[in-house]
Amino acid sequence: MEKRYLLAPGPTAIPPEVLLKMAEPIIHHRNPLFEEVLEEVRENLKYLFGSKNEVLIFASSGTGAMESAVTNTLSPGDKAICIRSGKFGERWANICKAYGVETINIDLPWGEELDVADVEKALKGNPDCKAVYMQATETSTGAMFPVKEVAGIVKNYPDTILVVDGITGIGVFELPQDEWHIDVLVGGSQKALMLPPGLSFAGVSDKAWEFNKKSKLPKFYFNWAKELTNLQKNQTNFTPAISLIIGLRESLKMIKAEGLENVYRRIDGLARATREGAKALGLKIFAKNPSPAVTAICAPEGIDGQAIYKTLWKKYGVTGAGGQDQLKGKIFRIATLGYADKYDVITAISALEFTLRDLGYKFEMGAGVAKAVDVLKDM
Amino acid sequence: MEKRYLLAPGPTAIPPEVLLKMAEPIIHHRNPLFEEVLEEVRENLKYLFGSKNEVLIFASSGTGAMESAVTNTLSPGDKAICIRSGKFGERWANICKAYGVETINIDLPWGEELDVADVEKALKGNPDCKAVYMQATETSTGAMFPVKEVAGIVKNYPDTILVVDGITGIGVFELPQDEWHIDVLVGGSQKALMLPPGLSFAGVSDKAWEFNKKSKLPKFYFNWAKELTNLQKNQTNFTPAISLIIGLRESLKMIKAEGLENVYRRIDGLARATREGAKALGLKIFAKNPSPAVTAICAPEGIDGQAIYKTLWKKYGVTGAGGQDQLKGKIFRIATLGYADKYDVITAISALEFTLRDLGYKFEMGAGVAKAVDVLKDM
Repeated sequence: MEKRYLLAPGPTAIPPEVLLKMAEPIIHHRNPLFEEVLEEVRENLKYLFGSKNEVLIFASSGTGAMESAVTNTLSPGDKAICIRSGKFGERWANICKAYGVETINIDLPWGEELDVADVEKALKGNPDCKAVYMQATETSTGAMFPVKEVAGIVKNYPDTILVVDGITGIGVFELPQDEWHIDVLVGGSQKALMLPPGLSFAGVSDKAWEFNKKSKLPKFYFNWAKELTNLQKNQTNFTPAISLIIGLRESLKMIKAEGLENVYRRIDGLARATREGAKALGLKIFAKNPSPAVTAICAPEGIDGQAIYKTLWKKYGVTGAGGQDQLKGKIFRIATLGYADKYDVITAISALEFTLRDLGYKFEMGAGVAKAVDVLKDM
Repeated sequence: MEKRYLLAPGPTAIPPEVLLKMAEPIIHHRNPLFEEVLEEVRENLKYLFGSKNEVLIFASSGTGAMESAVTNTLSPGDKAICIRSGKFGERWANICKAYGVETINIDLPWGEELDVADVEKALKGNPDCKAVYMQATETSTGAMFPVKEVAGIVKNYPDTILVVDGITGIGVFELPQDEWHIDVLVGGSQKALMLPPGLSFAGVSDKAWEFNKKSKLPKFYFNWAKELTNLQKNQTNFTPAISLIIGLRESLKMIKAEGLENVYRRIDGLARATREGAKALGLKIFAKNPSPAVTAICAPEGIDGQAIYKTLWKKYGVTGAGGQDQLKGKIFRIATLGYADKYDVITAISALEFTLRDLGYKFEMGAGVAKAVDVLKDM
């Protein structure tokens, strides 16, 4: 017998009630039964995104919605600012490059904090930049970025929109789209929404819709305007990922029942316990400003981060994640977003203790879980 | 109690064993458990497509793979020939237009047969055309197109590729990609593959890969070359639709166990029984060269095709499809692809008899099912 625990930063564990809903006989998308599903999903996505506007839904990975945020707002030869400090921040610049959009890159060492003054400076120096691209939280480093502060700057530039990759942030911490003036907020299904991968989302502000009208980059599958027209009739432009949208209805219902504020508080507590538990073992947290979504923990000197990740997974049943690209071997990651509770964190920290012991690291056995339990005791 | 029967041309019914596999706890895609799934899926997709080359897998609707077939082979300003005789044939031209590819359109009245001489003529008159786009079977009209014959012509043009929308054709009738010289063969999950929508496929010939090297149209999410590099390592370029790929492993296993030739024979027999059953009720089949995937049946004079489709669905539990665009009200459709057997056809024809009676059509009650049973008796 081997019980398995999924604490990766996507895909995340799926609640059994969501899995079973998706296992019911499929229904046709051009019929009132599905339209009813979509109507409820539309309302609850607006609640999740904190927006009065429709949240567009695509059958794709999150990257598809990221691409849509570029091709539906810009034109060939446009300039944009990309804030890069990890694998996914770099993706914005890669998408821009593929579509002939010139980028001015604000490059931070991975894991560092963003100085918002750098964004203001870049905008002043390049007033013709049509967009600023950033992450809410960078999955590869476990770092948080100051979306509210950046949005507060960009909103004063009428010819520039702020596009935020919220794939690992939405439903994890506060990201109210309308209140903060986030022009495009991109999401994905396999994170806080507790679903399999295969759905992506784009929340679009009125300002971004104005950009859409003038945008000349080519698009067909990810065409916002056509998607919106259909969505307003409880339809999608192309055949939707029906089963995932049916699962989405359930997971949104669960999030709404718990209440977003409570979800944020729960995940924040779980991440805090993860960080404190790791620190009690003498480990360092990689990101200066750590995210509640995923905790990137530095491998102790002389121990390979990939060995930690693999031992956790293979021997102790806990699937976290290793480091990506330049961080491979240097960190390992434990996620706390989505369908996670305090026992998941205690499980993860105890598995980490077993793992570190196997790899020859010296520490006081039990110190990590003791600390985690202490942090979690009032949750 | 109300039992429901799904006989639509996508989504099609999903076998319970596939639904239950997809309802198991999700696994992470960057780990050997998933790589093992992908390895088996890759092999069986080659069997299904009849190709020695890798079949690329995308998390998207079928239209995403259609778009990829344009953007990964052509460059801005290229010319292409589109064979149009229905909603989906028109989609090829719409995609080309969105990406600045000029099209020469061979337009047939919907439901008519293609004269392959028209393709030869178009190619001779436009030797600079880089691609010919067509459907294997047009879902909106239930018509078959002579892919083998068109491929036999296009293969003699070294600077032109043949791109076939096989979304409703693959796994329904013979479409051996390599043997027939189909350069790009596009598929989708929600048809003969008996899965929810959300996966699309592109089989790519060596000739099409040569086109890919010179192609300059922008692409990022649907980038073939990057997808191929990853697939060869049992990975995907972006987070895959994990649960659907796990379902795909099961449905491909079922198809392989039955054997493709037997699948084709079964579906052909079911479609024949559907056509003969409808004709025995005095109804006409819309397409000159009807497809085994889906039978488009003309509404009898004075009766609205949408009323037939809706009564079938609402009152008699059988979900077929109505007519689309210019055929709305004129036809209704019953599909026989995927997870369908002889009792599904008998159910559909009997539901059709109940429906026609309700709508005041005069016919001999029981004549349709009697004919269907007769056609199916030796299956």
